[in-house]
Amino acid sequence: MTDISYDARTGEAVEELTASTVSEVDEALAMAAAVAPAMAATPPATRRTWLSAIAAALEVPETVDELVALADRETGLGEERLRMELGRTPVQLRYYADVAVEGSYVDVTVDAGPPRLARMRVPLGPVAVFGASNFPFLFSVLGTDTGSALAAGCPVVVKAHPAHPALSARLGRLAVAALASAGAPAGVFALVSGFDAGTRLVGSPHTAAVAFTGSQRGGLALWRLANERDVVIPVFAEMGTVNPVVVTPAAVSSSLATGFVESFTRGTGQYCTKPGLLFAPAGSGMAAKVAEALRTLAPSAWLLTSQIAAAAVDGVGELVSAGGEVAGQVAGPETGWAAPATVLSVPIEKLTSGSRLLEECFGPVAIVTEYADRAELETALDQLQGTLAAAVMAGDADPDVPWLVERLSTLAGRVTVNDWPTGVAVSWAQHHGGPWPSTTNPATTSVGAAALTRFTRPVAYQNVPDEALPPALRESNPWRLPRREMS
Amino acid sequence: MTDISYDARTGEAVEELTASTVSEVDEALAMAAAVAPAMAATPPATRRTWLSAIAAALEVPETVDELVALADRETGLGEERLRMELGRTPVQLRYYADVAVEGSYVDVTVDAGPPRLARMRVPLGPVAVFGASNFPFLFSVLGTDTGSALAAGCPVVVKAHPAHPALSARLGRLAVAALASAGAPAGVFALVSGFDAGTRLVGSPHTAAVAFTGSQRGGLALWRLANERDVVIPVFAEMGTVNPVVVTPAAVSSSLATGFVESFTRGTGQYCTKPGLLFAPAGSGMAAKVAEALRTLAPSAWLLTSQIAAAAVDGVGELVSAGGEVAGQVAGPETGWAAPATVLSVPIEKLTSGSRLLEECFGPVAIVTEYADRAELETALDQLQGTLAAAVMAGDADPDVPWLVERLSTLAGRVTVNDWPTGVAVSWAQHHGGPWPSTTNPATTSVGAAALTRFTRPVAYQNVPDEALPPALRESNPWRLPRREMS
Repeated sequence: MTDISYDARTGEAVEELTASTVSEVDEALAMAAAVAPAMAATPPATRRTWLSAIAAALEVPETVDELVALADRETGLGEERLRMELGRTPVQLRYYADVAVEGSYVDVTVDAGPPRLARMRVPLGPVAVFGASNFPFLFSVLGTDTGSALAAGCPVVVKAHPAHPALSARLGRLAVAALASAGAPAGVFALVSGFDAGTRLVGSPHTAAVAFTGSQRGGLALWRLANERDVVIPVFAEMGTVNPVVVTPAAVSSSLATGFVESFTRGTGQYCTKPGLLFAPAGSGMAAKVAEALRTLAPSAWLLTSQIAAAAVDGVGELVSAGGEVAGQVAGPETGWAAPATVLSVPIEKLTSGSRLLEECFGPVAIVTEYADRAELETALDQLQGTLAAAVMAGDADPDVPWLVERLSTLAGRVTVNDWPTGVAVSWAQHHGGPWPSTTNPATTSVGAAALTRFTRPVAYQNVPDEALPPALRESNPWRLPRREMS
Repeated sequence: MTDISYDARTGEAVEELTASTVSEVDEALAMAAAVAPAMAATPPATRRTWLSAIAAALEVPETVDELVALADRETGLGEERLRMELGRTPVQLRYYADVAVEGSYVDVTVDAGPPRLARMRVPLGPVAVFGASNFPFLFSVLGTDTGSALAAGCPVVVKAHPAHPALSARLGRLAVAALASAGAPAGVFALVSGFDAGTRLVGSPHTAAVAFTGSQRGGLALWRLANERDVVIPVFAEMGTVNPVVVTPAAVSSSLATGFVESFTRGTGQYCTKPGLLFAPAGSGMAAKVAEALRTLAPSAWLLTSQIAAAAVDGVGELVSAGGEVAGQVAGPETGWAAPATVLSVPIEKLTSGSRLLEECFGPVAIVTEYADRAELETALDQLQGTLAAAVMAGDADPDVPWLVERLSTLAGRVTVNDWPTGVAVSWAQHHGGPWPSTTNPATTSVGAAALTRFTRPVAYQNVPDEALPPALRESNPWRLPRREMS
C-alpha cells in the first residue's frame, strides 16, 4: 500500500510515496531498541544539541519556503498559517530540550534511609509516534510528541501521516540528516510510512510506548491493539472532543458571536480544541448572531483530506438527524476538499448522553443551544463526555464564573475564562489532556513541560553503591539535576 | 454469595458473612460520588484529621488485641508478625496524611503568561480498592491504597477480601466510626463484600479509578473489565512476579543461602516481593546450600487460603514439569492450609520466555539456577518478565554491580544491592511498581509518597480570576502548597 500526496485545493493526486516494507520497519525498530540504553545514558545537554540541530534545520530560509509550499499543497491550510506554525516548531523543540536540561521532570528523590533509596524517572525506550493531520508541523513528524520523547531520552519512530505524506518524508530526511550532523547515533529517529507500518510499530516487542494525536476512532484502535500485546504498553492518545463553551447572561454580546466564529472556523475548524458547542442564555438570540457573523466573515477554505471533507458534510447531516437545525451556512470552495462552514441551533433537551450532538464534528461546524436557567444548564452539562478544554465567557465579577469553572473542571483538562480554547501555549503549567474519551490517559499531557514525563517510569535504587548508580543519581550529580533529599 | 471466614490453622469454617446486596453497593457508590466534590475542596489538613482518627482507632490496646486475634485466625500469619504489621498501619496512614499536607504532589505550577495558566492535580473521585490477601493490615481495608486515596482527596469504597472477611468487616466498621467521630462527611469511606460487589464497583459510572494488589489473574481481570466500560477508568494493579536475585562470583557464601531462605519463606512466602529466582555462579553449589539452610531453618507455617495452599502444591509440580528438580523440601503443618517449603534447582537453559519457571509461584517456593558466565546470565535475564524488584548480591567494590544494576533496572521498578527485596519502606523515594506484567501502569507506585499521584489528574486554569480558582491555586495560597511560578 502506498501513500498518495494530494493537492487539497484541487483534489488531484500529485505524488505517490512508497510505503515502508516490513523489514524496513523492523530494522528501524531494532536500531531504536539497540540505541535506547546509550540514549538513556546520554546527558540531557547532549540531547539538547541534537534537538537544536533539528530546530536549526527547520529555520534555513530555503528549507522554510520549501516546507511551507509542500505543506500548503497537501493541507490547503494557507501560507500564512503554515509559516507561523512552522516558525513555532523549532521553538517547541528547543523548549523541550530546555525542560530536559532543567531536569525536574526526572523527579530525583533520595531517602537517607535506612534503607538508602534513590529514585529517578528513566526513559521507557522506543516511542512510536502517530502525528496529527491538522498540524503538519507542530503535531506531526517533528512535533510535540517527537520533541518531548527525544528530550526525555527515548528513540522515536514516526509513522508518516497519510494526509501529508510528501511533507512527512521530507521532514523525516531533514531530521535524520540534522541528527547525524550533530553526532547523534543512528537509530535515535526514523520515519516509516504506510498503514501496515503503523500496525507493526504498535505490535513490535521493541516499542515501549505509543503517542497519537487524532480522531477517537484512530486513537482507540491503537489503544486496543496495544492492549492485546503480550507485554501491554501505554498508548498516549489525544483525541477530538466538543470543547463546550458556556456564555453567562452577563456576557452576551455580538463581538462574542464574531469571536466564536473565528475560533470554530480557525484552520477550517480542524483543531482538537475547536469550541464545538456553545451554551447561551435563553432569549440571547445567539444562534442568529453567530449565523450573521458567519455570513459576514464568510470563512471558506479547504479541508485536509477527502475523507475529512466528506465526514464534515455527512456530520452536518447527522447533527440535523439528531435534532439540530442549520442556522447559518457559508459554502466552501468549489474545487478540492471542501465543506460548508455551518452553525446549527439545537434545543437543549436534545443534548442527551450518547447523542451524536455531543460528539466532535471535525471541520468548520459548531452548535449553539440555549439554557433557561442554571438547573437546565447543569442538567445538560451532566450529559457531556470528557473533553480537552472548556470555556466560560463571562462579564466582570460575574457570579456564575466560580461554579462554572468548578463544574467544567470535572469534565475538562483545561478551563478558560474569556479566552477561546483554540490556542495551546507550550509552557510549564500547560495541560493538554483530559478525561476519557478526550485522551486514553487523563493523567498525562501532550503539550507543555509535563509532556516529557509520559515517556518515563520511576526506578528506585536501594542500597546501590554510588559508582553503580545512573549518573543522574550520583553524589557528584554530573547532570546537575534538581533533587529532593529526605533525611 | 456469602464470604466464609475460615481458621487457616484448621481449615474450619468459623463464621459466615453476608455479601452486600446490589443496592447496598450502589448506595455506597452514590454516596461516594455525592461527597467527592466537597472532599476535593477539603483542605489537606482536615483530611489529615480524618486519617489520624482512623490511625488512633487502630492503636487502642483492646482493639489491637482483637484485630490481631481475628487476623491470626483468618490468615495463620502468627501474632508476632501481625502485631508488627498492624503497628505499622497507623504510621502509614499518618505518613500519607503528612504527604497530602506537604502538598508537593499537587504539583502547583503557574505561568505568568500570557496566557496566565495555573495547573494543579485534582482528585479523580471515588476509588474502588481491592486489597491483598497477604497483608491484612498494610495492604488491605485500611492499607496503602485506601490511605493514599483518602489523603489525595478521593472517597474510597473497599471490597472486603475473601481471605479475611471477618477482619475486613471489623476494619470497615472501625473506619466508618472513626471518620464519623472526626467529622468526616458520610460517603468518604465504605466497605462492601462479595464477588458480585467487586464487579459492580468496577462497572459503576461513579467509580473513577481502581486500585488492586494481588495475583496477575485477578488484577488483569479487573483491568479488562474496566477497559470494557463506556468511560474507561484507570486500574492500578500491583501484581505478583518472580523478583530475580543475581549472586555475583564475589558474593557466594553460606550466610547468603540462609538469608535467601529467610527472605523467600517470610510470611510463608506470601510476599509480592518474594525473591523467587536466584542466579548463582556455576559451581557455587548454591542449590545444595539453600536446601541445607531450608532443612536447618525448617520454616513451616500456614498459607492464607485453601486455594493458595493448593496452588503452592500444584505450583511445585508445574515447576518440576517445566524442568525444575526439587533440591530441598520441608513439610508444612499437618492441619489447615499447608504446603511444603521448597527449593528447586533448574538448569539455566530451561529459563525461556513464556516458561512456567519464570512466573510467580505464590508461597514458600523458590528456584536456584547457575550461570557459567556473563553471556549466559545475560541471555537468561533477557527472558524475564517485568518485575517489581530485583536484587544483586555482591562483594566489596564488585565489578559486576554496575552492569547488573543497569540491566536489572530495565526489568524492575526497584533494584537492591546486598538487600533482600522483601521489605518495602514507606518513604519519599520508594517505588513499588514495575514494568508489565508486574503492574498495569509502570509509571505509578502503590507505596510511598508518590502513591497519592495515582488518584489525581492535572487541570490547567487559563485566565481564570483568582476568586474562581480552587483554593490551592489562589494568590493567598490558603493550603500553603509549594508552587512553581514561571515568569
